Amino acid sequence: MHNKNGKGALWGNQYIFNMAHTLNDYLREVENLFKEERFVFEPHELYDPIDYTLRLGGKRIRPTLLLAANALFDGHLEEAKGAALGIETFHNFTLLHDDLMDRSPLRRGQPTVYTKWGDNTAVLSGDTMFALAWRYFLRQPSPRLREILNCFNETAIEVCEGQQRDMNFEKRTIEDVSLDEYMDMIRQKTAVLLAGALKIGALYANAPDAEIEKLYRFGLHLGLAFQLQDDLLDGYGDTAVFGKKTGQDIRDLKKNYLVLRALQICDKQQGETLAKLYDDPDIDEEERVKQVMALYDAIGLKPSVEEAIGEEFRAAGECLGRIDADEALKAPLRELTATLVGRKK
Amino acid sequence: MHNKNGKGALWGNQYIFNMAHTLNDYLREVENLFKEERFVFEPHELYDPIDYTLRLGGKRIRPTLLLAANALFDGHLEEAKGAALGIETFHNFTLLHDDLMDRSPLRRGQPTVYTKWGDNTAVLSGDTMFALAWRYFLRQPSPRLREILNCFNETAIEVCEGQQRDMNFEKRTIEDVSLDEYMDMIRQKTAVLLAGALKIGALYANAPDAEIEKLYRFGLHLGLAFQLQDDLLDGYGDTAVFGKKTGQDIRDLKKNYLVLRALQICDKQQGETLAKLYDDPDIDEEERVKQVMALYDAIGLKPSVEEAIGEEFRAAGECLGRIDADEALKAPLRELTATLVGRKK
Repeated sequence: MHNKNGKGALWGNQYIFNMAHTLNDYLREVENLFKEERFVFEPHELYDPIDYTLRLGGKRIRPTLLLAANALFDGHLEEAKGAALGIETFHNFTLLHDDLMDRSPLRRGQPTVYTKWGDNTAVLSGDTMFALAWRYFLRQPSPRLREILNCFNETAIEVCEGQQRDMNFEKRTIEDVSLDEYMDMIRQKTAVLLAGALKIGALYANAPDAEIEKLYRFGLHLGLAFQLQDDLLDGYGDTAVFGKKTGQDIRDLKKNYLVLRALQICDKQQGETLAKLYDDPDIDEEERVKQVMALYDAIGLKPSVEEAIGEEFRAAGECLGRIDADEALKAPLRELTATLVGRKK
Repeated sequence: MHNKNGKGALWGNQYIFNMAHTLNDYLREVENLFKEERFVFEPHELYDPIDYTLRLGGKRIRPTLLLAANALFDGHLEEAKGAALGIETFHNFTLLHDDLMDRSPLRRGQPTVYTKWGDNTAVLSGDTMFALAWRYFLRQPSPRLREILNCFNETAIEVCEGQQRDMNFEKRTIEDVSLDEYMDMIRQKTAVLLAGALKIGALYANAPDAEIEKLYRFGLHLGLAFQLQDDLLDGYGDTAVFGKKTGQDIRDLKKNYLVLRALQICDKQQGETLAKLYDDPDIDEEERVKQVMALYDAIGLKPSVEEAIGEEFRAAGECLGRIDADEALKAPLRELTATLVGRKK
């Protein structure tokens, strides 16, 4: 890890001197961290689903952001590793409980915990994962520990609030949910956790508050872009690469960015058609997907959404640019941003 | 609050000098703390069930223990109030999720959250309560904050493990579950939280580790006695005072202390009868209760269980006696113990 004092830092098992890392270095480090963590404890009925969940993989974006943010301010990576494990464990806990609430049978192509072990296991193993996240967070002392833990906890509360708002949308019509409300929901459900991960990494490095604030805003924009991209992929992803059938949000009658943005740019008649398609319980699911997508195409929805995503990525890049830190150390964060811009899955 | 330095301490809104408090003072203080806490936030679908749960009341034993332990070592009560709120919020979170998993329709005579608002609300409002408990715990800085939070979190993990072991018992026969296993389960599910509450109160007062250890053991014995008392009341409570129908554990085929202890002291033939009563799906529930209770009476189970409970209370009192602290300040803890010894509900 790059270090202005030239003292070097522990990277894996070796000291590396004055060397900025690439995104891949961080991703590999995070993978190694999780490889070492096994939950083979008793009662195994409680810990098996946790071990299973944490080994399903995923993009590991949050811990990677946390470590890269730590390095940005010459942090000692070792100190931040517990928090990196903690933030990813928390994220996976929220997925576990979300899948139970949303009755999603698959996650990363594998059966979800509630389908494999039942609802009660999903509840209790999830609760335990939340506590295990805290165990990781408490592993390392820090002069700013209370700030770090407060940031983690307030983020956790926002994620719960975001999930509740998302569930509330289910009971409302597409015309009743505004795009602003939707953006506020995904800010809480998705973006604050990316922003929080960055902030925590920087807090471990004792970064100046003004820089942490910019980093946090970078994370919010990145998170919004990430979620909008997700919504776009649901409609326009390449099934072979995406790994899932497209149109699932339409099948689930989910209020996502696509349908709410479509309502904004379409004319009155198209709006009524869309509302009817989302309101008709008798229409065949695949027929609904086909007709909704045709309407999206007719109004040129895709480029409009891509523009909104581009705007968030641009804003994210701007925040990152304004941070007072070594440009070489920003590179992995820029690289991660660039990867997400073009992501196909 | 008594203070060796004669400086007095803030109690409610007034300073009280050199005055040891009674159990009732602490109970009233805890009630006042909760009266001030309202969860009237948005989204209300998330917070209404939390507000409801925290206002259902209960014995408030854990926060009371925490405050009394804090005073025992001349702690500044103000500092420990956040943790008192936190420990009770956590306890109520576990009840909320337990009721969902156990499908218990009533809690403190009122409908449980999942019956009132549905399973998903129970999951998510519960998760949020766990985070709100952390918010309370993080309210007050302390030189020993990391120790305090570690104690809280490791306790939380043990409570989850205890709940899992309890659920595991459901799939096993009464002959398969040993009394030792049962005691270990209730130690985790119930006793460690009482012990943890005491330890946290003492940590806020920066008590010596040796004294904290004795206090923790006092809490474990108290917790075991409390749970055994609960099991006894399920069989022998006075319905009018107890507020619930007795024999519910028998109806639910729950492995409790009564049935496991009965198996230990009865003869072979009685043991087979008991096993059959717990194994026969066709027998009428009320008939099962009647026959099991008759067998309990025939083997003199009640005095034997009362003896075991008395033994735990005696051990608790002994631990308390050995703690190096002002006897006047121990009085509320002795009083609480005495209240629990004779409790009828």
